[in-house]
Amino acid sequence: MTDEGRVGEGHTDGRESVLDRAVQILGAFGAASPVLSAAQIARRTGMPAPTVYRMVGELLRLGILEREADKRLRIGIRLWELASRSSPAMGLRTAALPFMEDLQAVVRQHTILGIILDREVIYLETLSAPGAASSPAKIAGRLPLHAGSNGLVLLAFAAPELQEQVLAEPLVAVTPRTVTDPKQLRRVLSRIRRDGHFVAERMIREDGAGVAVPIRGADGSVVAALSVAVANNKQVTARMIPALKAASNGITRTLVVAQSAPAGQWPMRPGGVWSGRSPVLAQ
Amino acid sequence: MTDEGRVGEGHTDGRESVLDRAVQILGAFGAASPVLSAAQIARRTGMPAPTVYRMVGELLRLGILEREADKRLRIGIRLWELASRSSPAMGLRTAALPFMEDLQAVVRQHTILGIILDREVIYLETLSAPGAASSPAKIAGRLPLHAGSNGLVLLAFAAPELQEQVLAEPLVAVTPRTVTDPKQLRRVLSRIRRDGHFVAERMIREDGAGVAVPIRGADGSVVAALSVAVANNKQVTARMIPALKAASNGITRTLVVAQSAPAGQWPMRPGGVWSGRSPVLAQ
Repeated sequence: MTDEGRVGEGHTDGRESVLDRAVQILGAFGAASPVLSAAQIARRTGMPAPTVYRMVGELLRLGILEREADKRLRIGIRLWELASRSSPAMGLRTAALPFMEDLQAVVRQHTILGIILDREVIYLETLSAPGAASSPAKIAGRLPLHAGSNGLVLLAFAAPELQEQVLAEPLVAVTPRTVTDPKQLRRVLSRIRRDGHFVAERMIREDGAGVAVPIRGADGSVVAALSVAVANNKQVTARMIPALKAASNGITRTLVVAQSAPAGQWPMRPGGVWSGRSPVLAQ
Repeated sequence: MTDEGRVGEGHTDGRESVLDRAVQILGAFGAASPVLSAAQIARRTGMPAPTVYRMVGELLRLGILEREADKRLRIGIRLWELASRSSPAMGLRTAALPFMEDLQAVVRQHTILGIILDREVIYLETLSAPGAASSPAKIAGRLPLHAGSNGLVLLAFAAPELQEQVLAEPLVAVTPRTVTDPKQLRRVLSRIRRDGHFVAERMIREDGAGVAVPIRGADGSVVAALSVAVANNKQVTARMIPALKAASNGITRTLVVAQSAPAGQWPMRPGGVWSGRSPVLAQ
């Protein structure tokens, strides 16, 4: 059977599966494996080596992959450019960053911005203090929604259908303190909605606590969660709540302003390409 | 002619062009056009509408595109996740961010991290003060290398072949003060290599200056440039140079440490997926 024949399996035509394979190849790279050989990609994806070589050649030509000096492969900047320059999530992250910096200045460990992706929390941004304990949240990393304060706040304010889907599946214990009982989880989510914040004591780290609040978008719906990782000390965690709520309100205000402002910034043209003569200087 | 037939034009087989088209579709989105209908994508890319509809369906299934409530399309978080979780550029950006924050605390306008992509400067990170003048540098935006302080420093320390390529082409005037004479540009680049910094007075904004320094990676080569946009005042710009050089050295030190440290962070598994039981708590 030719490769072309194989491509179509389970899909309406060959075109679809090429993209499936491209995503599989890109997905083979990770935080702990940022550089891979084509042979390693073939092993990780289970794809035939000749297919991987052809796809890699094309991805290199498009700049989606780049070569290291030793010929091994890594994710190209071009992919990040395509993903970042118009992503609404990047707008959220840009709006949140100054407020996260202000928070981080008073937090001893980590400040984290999370959103929901595929019924998990994905971290859009994390700020850490030098010398802080290793963070459970890495940029573009994921955790189950019920595992920590950030995800639990997101789950509490998520669509009821999503909550029911999560509650209907086995709640995996990420640590021994993860809430795995659906009834108990419902109570936790209800309390989060009532309080507008959540303190997760020793849920991820034995000596730490996560404190999280929801962030509302311009339309009033919860679009993200903001959390800090601090020492597990009631005085410390109580003090974080007003700071988090103030930061969250500031981010919402920025999102409201951004939505009513025109896009595009001089001298960048739509799409981030420079616009030639400046309207200011070229008079 | 069928679509399959058209796909192959100019390529070795149909597979390659599917990726070309996917990149074209993703490239139709921009900072000023983050949300598009399929019909708008067809117009912007010049691709046949049925092809766009099929490709969009597949990209939606893979999470590479997402739908707005009004059914229009935007870039999906999944693409950002694939691009970000293992990108070396993101490692650079993470290393640079704390130093950029410290710089930004004393800078009135913008702090910018740039690298070279396709003979242009692409901005990996920009920090702005509230109320600062609109920035010429937007995250994931680009400018010609010879147009501003950040790109000029990158160009000064780039491979000689790249410099010759840029010098051999017409040097477009982004503003009336852009250096467009190759001889003059050679002198500017030579001065940057001698001084280890560059002050671009009124090059982008009439009342502003850009001050930039190179950032060296763990192997000693220049991997990025760090710049600030400040008022065009000799006292101000002179004061920025030691601050920028200190920040640049700090970033290099972080990159050296990061290279010698093992990857992966608890409880995240390689690739940013949680690892189940924590090695710390699950004893």
